[in-house]
Amino acid sequence: MFEKTTVDENYIRVPRDKLFNFVVEVFKRLDVPEEDAKIVADNLIMADMRGIESHGVQRLKRYVDGIEKGAVNVHPNIKVVKESPVFAVLDADEALGQVAGYRGMKLAIEKAKNTGVGIVGVRNSNHYGIAGYYAYMAVKEDLVGISMTTSRPLVAHTGAMEKFMGTSPIAVGAPVENDYPFLLDMATSVVPSGKVEVYRRKNKPVPGEWAISTETGEVIYDPNEILSPRGTILPLGGLREITGGHKGYGLSAVVDILAGILNGATWSRHVGGTSDKHSDVGHFFMAIDPGAFGDKEEFKKNMKKFVDELRNAKKHPKFKRIWVHGEKGFLTYETRLKLGVPIYRKVYEEMNEIAKRLGVPTL
Amino acid sequence: MFEKTTVDENYIRVPRDKLFNFVVEVFKRLDVPEEDAKIVADNLIMADMRGIESHGVQRLKRYVDGIEKGAVNVHPNIKVVKESPVFAVLDADEALGQVAGYRGMKLAIEKAKNTGVGIVGVRNSNHYGIAGYYAYMAVKEDLVGISMTTSRPLVAHTGAMEKFMGTSPIAVGAPVENDYPFLLDMATSVVPSGKVEVYRRKNKPVPGEWAISTETGEVIYDPNEILSPRGTILPLGGLREITGGHKGYGLSAVVDILAGILNGATWSRHVGGTSDKHSDVGHFFMAIDPGAFGDKEEFKKNMKKFVDELRNAKKHPKFKRIWVHGEKGFLTYETRLKLGVPIYRKVYEEMNEIAKRLGVPTL
Repeated sequence: MFEKTTVDENYIRVPRDKLFNFVVEVFKRLDVPEEDAKIVADNLIMADMRGIESHGVQRLKRYVDGIEKGAVNVHPNIKVVKESPVFAVLDADEALGQVAGYRGMKLAIEKAKNTGVGIVGVRNSNHYGIAGYYAYMAVKEDLVGISMTTSRPLVAHTGAMEKFMGTSPIAVGAPVENDYPFLLDMATSVVPSGKVEVYRRKNKPVPGEWAISTETGEVIYDPNEILSPRGTILPLGGLREITGGHKGYGLSAVVDILAGILNGATWSRHVGGTSDKHSDVGHFFMAIDPGAFGDKEEFKKNMKKFVDELRNAKKHPKFKRIWVHGEKGFLTYETRLKLGVPIYRKVYEEMNEIAKRLGVPTL
Repeated sequence: MFEKTTVDENYIRVPRDKLFNFVVEVFKRLDVPEEDAKIVADNLIMADMRGIESHGVQRLKRYVDGIEKGAVNVHPNIKVVKESPVFAVLDADEALGQVAGYRGMKLAIEKAKNTGVGIVGVRNSNHYGIAGYYAYMAVKEDLVGISMTTSRPLVAHTGAMEKFMGTSPIAVGAPVENDYPFLLDMATSVVPSGKVEVYRRKNKPVPGEWAISTETGEVIYDPNEILSPRGTILPLGGLREITGGHKGYGLSAVVDILAGILNGATWSRHVGGTSDKHSDVGHFFMAIDPGAFGDKEEFKKNMKKFVDELRNAKKHPKFKRIWVHGEKGFLTYETRLKLGVPIYRKVYEEMNEIAKRLGVPTL
């Protein structure tokens, strides 16, 4: 079992279904149609279940704020702007990002089933939660899935000293025979902002070269400063070209191009956050049928050989084991399905305050 | 002008066309058909012209060795194994990687022009030179281009301590109005092996945490050790998860999946080098027509706004300027077109030895 189950009094465990129903009720009370409320709830809780607390229900307040401020359209008219048997571009009409994302990947999956490949771009959307959620949608259909999204400016590209690029994540999933799927879900920055938020909450300096000052360009470690206008996160690879910082910058730019500019959405510094009006977040979804490119069972068998070989490579003495991408998350998911989802006490209280204010039964 | 034009007596400048004709003659003498010889020569010299010396004519000897050992098939029967209007899988029949790669991306471009998207996978190929060459082929046709390839094992994935993953590069290009195209061309390792070779030649320790010992797992700096069986390169993000090493590992795995396993090619530790028989290198090519997803001119205009904004961001005091991916290479290309291509003296001599042995006029 992966997850340590030691008692941490800062956390309260809530059964998955109870948490799901709670989140659905909150969104329904905000006039989100039940079907859409379930999509958003499933996405947020999947993050918590997989151990990506930063993208889980702790973001509920931001979504609630976004809806109450009118920054998010809960009755969107999601339009197909362009379409062919293999691709489509959707205008999300400022929908909840999860609703637009779910629709986008579903369409990409349908197309991949018919033509071997499906690509769907989305513009005019909002924060869509964890990128891996959508890649995994494809994997559950025995397809390879790719998901990317633009995001609000938090990262300084190589040579720059301001919040400019998004942490723009990339997720790629693939089915594996008799094993957990392969599921990479990564910010193109050295860390996502949520990891810095965790250190802020613990009141501890961040443990690596994650960010620089926007005033001096020096590396800074104080999470409060990093998350203030005086700090900015670094791209994957860090500050300098010598450690490949320009590569993280390049990958983030690719997300801006494929998920943003290609779909007529905006890019990098112009992208809005969850509670901003007209965030114009862009997504890119792609599904590929390995059965169209070759033999599907052969593909899954070879994936199994690949992941087993990865795990059984000569191990580094400083590491306990070698992980395959996705594995930790699936193990954590299984544990939390049994034991409940740990919710940070302050988040738990915040959620109940929302419930009381909206007249929804508390957790 | 980007390139410093100071005199370095270790280098000899050769005019581009002279170098091109020389390389073509060498390959022709090895029974490579003229058309194919020109493709390989253009690819190698493009690397030198863009300042990627590691992938330029200094590799000529390896290609010559590979052909002479019979590891490369100079009269391949490149077969289309699977095909639809939007994708294809090619079996390269152990062709020169550049020949298979050129054919693959050309087909992807044709498909993208007809259907908006084209994807071509290749198996049973060899080392294809710089990944950016193929992405740029698409860009020259006003398309977005993506190119990836598996490569021989040189990198330890997170938690491992052996040469296991490839440096597996990813290249993405996009056209920009009135400017150089955007062109990212990156190894998914912290550095490509060619960069380590440069330090070996200079007899200097490498300047960053690029590699570890396969015996102790400690970071090592001696380029001879790194390139020996006692060393292995680190993924982008470095040794530890705290700096995102697992992300570079994940991206490399994605290349193994998309360029390798999906096409029925092998993966990571099983991939051969330039002079190995049955290298079974796999490639992935994709072209997207921005005019299918939206308005092509609008796309290129927005790309121009994007790259100008990147350049004009608040500059870090330790950097002279902010570069856009591809720009340095195009500037270097222009300089070298005028001044000639600098060839390392030892490489120059090695090339002339090859010429004498094969009975081709020397450089």
